[in-house]
Amino acid sequence: MTDTQRHAVTISEIAAKAGVSVPTVSRVLNHRSDVAPHTRERVERLLREHGYQRRGPHREERAGLVDLVFDDLDSPWALEVIRGVEQAAHAAGVGTVVSAVHRRRSSARLWLDNVRARASDGVILVTTALDPDLHSELRGLHLPAVVVDPAGLPDLDVPTIGATNWAGGVAATEHLTALGHRRIAHVAGRPGLWCTRARLDGYRAALDFAGLAADPRLVVPGEFDYASGARAAAQLLELADPPTAVFAASDQMALGVYEAVRRRGLRVPDDVSVVGFDDLPQAAWSSPPLTTVHQPLGQMGELAVRTVLRLVNGERLEGPKVELATRLVVRDSTAAPR
Amino acid sequence: MTDTQRHAVTISEIAAKAGVSVPTVSRVLNHRSDVAPHTRERVERLLREHGYQRRGPHREERAGLVDLVFDDLDSPWALEVIRGVEQAAHAAGVGTVVSAVHRRRSSARLWLDNVRARASDGVILVTTALDPDLHSELRGLHLPAVVVDPAGLPDLDVPTIGATNWAGGVAATEHLTALGHRRIAHVAGRPGLWCTRARLDGYRAALDFAGLAADPRLVVPGEFDYASGARAAAQLLELADPPTAVFAASDQMALGVYEAVRRRGLRVPDDVSVVGFDDLPQAAWSSPPLTTVHQPLGQMGELAVRTVLRLVNGERLEGPKVELATRLVVRDSTAAPR
Repeated sequence: MTDTQRHAVTISEIAAKAGVSVPTVSRVLNHRSDVAPHTRERVERLLREHGYQRRGPHREERAGLVDLVFDDLDSPWALEVIRGVEQAAHAAGVGTVVSAVHRRRSSARLWLDNVRARASDGVILVTTALDPDLHSELRGLHLPAVVVDPAGLPDLDVPTIGATNWAGGVAATEHLTALGHRRIAHVAGRPGLWCTRARLDGYRAALDFAGLAADPRLVVPGEFDYASGARAAAQLLELADPPTAVFAASDQMALGVYEAVRRRGLRVPDDVSVVGFDDLPQAAWSSPPLTTVHQPLGQMGELAVRTVLRLVNGERLEGPKVELATRLVVRDSTAAPR
Repeated sequence: MTDTQRHAVTISEIAAKAGVSVPTVSRVLNHRSDVAPHTRERVERLLREHGYQRRGPHREERAGLVDLVFDDLDSPWALEVIRGVEQAAHAAGVGTVVSAVHRRRSSARLWLDNVRARASDGVILVTTALDPDLHSELRGLHLPAVVVDPAGLPDLDVPTIGATNWAGGVAATEHLTALGHRRIAHVAGRPGLWCTRARLDGYRAALDFAGLAADPRLVVPGEFDYASGARAAAQLLELADPPTAVFAASDQMALGVYEAVRRRGLRVPDDVSVVGFDDLPQAAWSSPPLTTVHQPLGQMGELAVRTVLRLVNGERLEGPKVELATRLVVRDSTAAPR
């Protein structure tokens, strides 16, 4: 939302630059109608140019709320992020308002109106891609915002918190090459997302490190969900020379791979080794328990809260783009090929 | 929190009965310190006796927030409830503040302080058992409250929203007796909870309906989680005359049963049929997809929001205790015994 390295500008400075009174700037910030249009425009431009962020020097002036926004709440993935955010927010005496906008403009519209009404202190957007114009409207609210698991290359000037997706893709694939697998497939994530590309590139790099040629027939796109994982694996297992191991770009797709293996009368890991990505609680609750790449979703949520609260307090951030480390968790779904 | 069938008492009526002014009653309601202790006591007693519930006739006077409180956010179960609550709240223009109190007094204490500070419009408690004194403190805030999935027999005079647990236990067990199973085990839920007892009683009733004697060795208590399900099933499979089918009181325990079956080199459903309870998304994502009893968690969450908002508006409830219907969902984890 701003270049947080800069000096944090105050309302009086904006007022002085605009040649208006401090109360006038406040009225603009509070979206009051009693400001002349050209004055509003001038003040808003200055607020934007100087990266003004609303903040209260006194705890009492704040709503004590942080808004946490998802596209959907249909993946167990979301609960892990909520848990981390809630924990850090609760400890800071701040309430976590959870919303889903369902990739629908009307829903995001309603959410924005509600955020304005409840005067939240800050916003954490998860993966979510708001329409460009809704994003600029959010920007107009001058609320500190952080993006968790950015969906695209960060063209927005907001702080982002992600995970080392590329390194995770390398670790998953190296685990399989180290076990002796040579035909390793990849069920990739939803096309167009940054994390999808990073995991795929990590897979390719690890094959390369192991001196294995990448077979394009062994890479099948998925949608991160169970059904697409099952579909992709069914396709892979029908190849004349099927893979002996599958690295899926999400735990849910890995569970779909399990089901495709079972339907062919085969077993994990005896016939096919499977590695997932995320390490949701479900990974440990599968049968056999799933080897997977741990994504520190809870920590990412906690860090998002701490970052938003620092912005609320007008503090500087050391670096606005952070990637937390992933790590491989080996369980019972991987073994040497027969 | 009140007998909602009664006439909704107003602040002026309380003021008249207490012999104080309306602003004095407001000060008591707002926890202001400028009220003499004996006056505060008298007013609070009257508010309690008459079941006063804070409400604003105008939308503008409200915080536009509902607090949703869990013991823990460690089960995918929680996400289903959050999704239902968020959907109904979002549609009503109300924000959902999600908290976990971790069965810890200090954490519940902090949550109560935060609820007071943000002046939420109402509270939805999920299963959670607040300490009796924290509960009476919550009551002192005169906020509309609803309990989802009550943990115990409803001794509190708050509206509750549950599911037909007994009928679900009957349906799960009847499905197995209809397939021809005669040795049917039950992995029960956490001891002491109302829903645990209702599901167990449903299991026993269905055995009785089918003319089967209940073998007490076939009932093993669990804790609703994967590990306890795996432990219980391992114990059952070691019996001289092991069961051919297992009804687990949660999906997570059913997945633990899968793993115990796999570890003995057996298969679901070929060697052991398994039925769960909840119908979390994970049930459909397991391998094989799990036959289970659907609990309408999302609908329970939606109804909780609508109930709280009706209380906020001072409306009457038809019945303060509601149980929504469960239903059996047959997938691939059950078959006739060999």
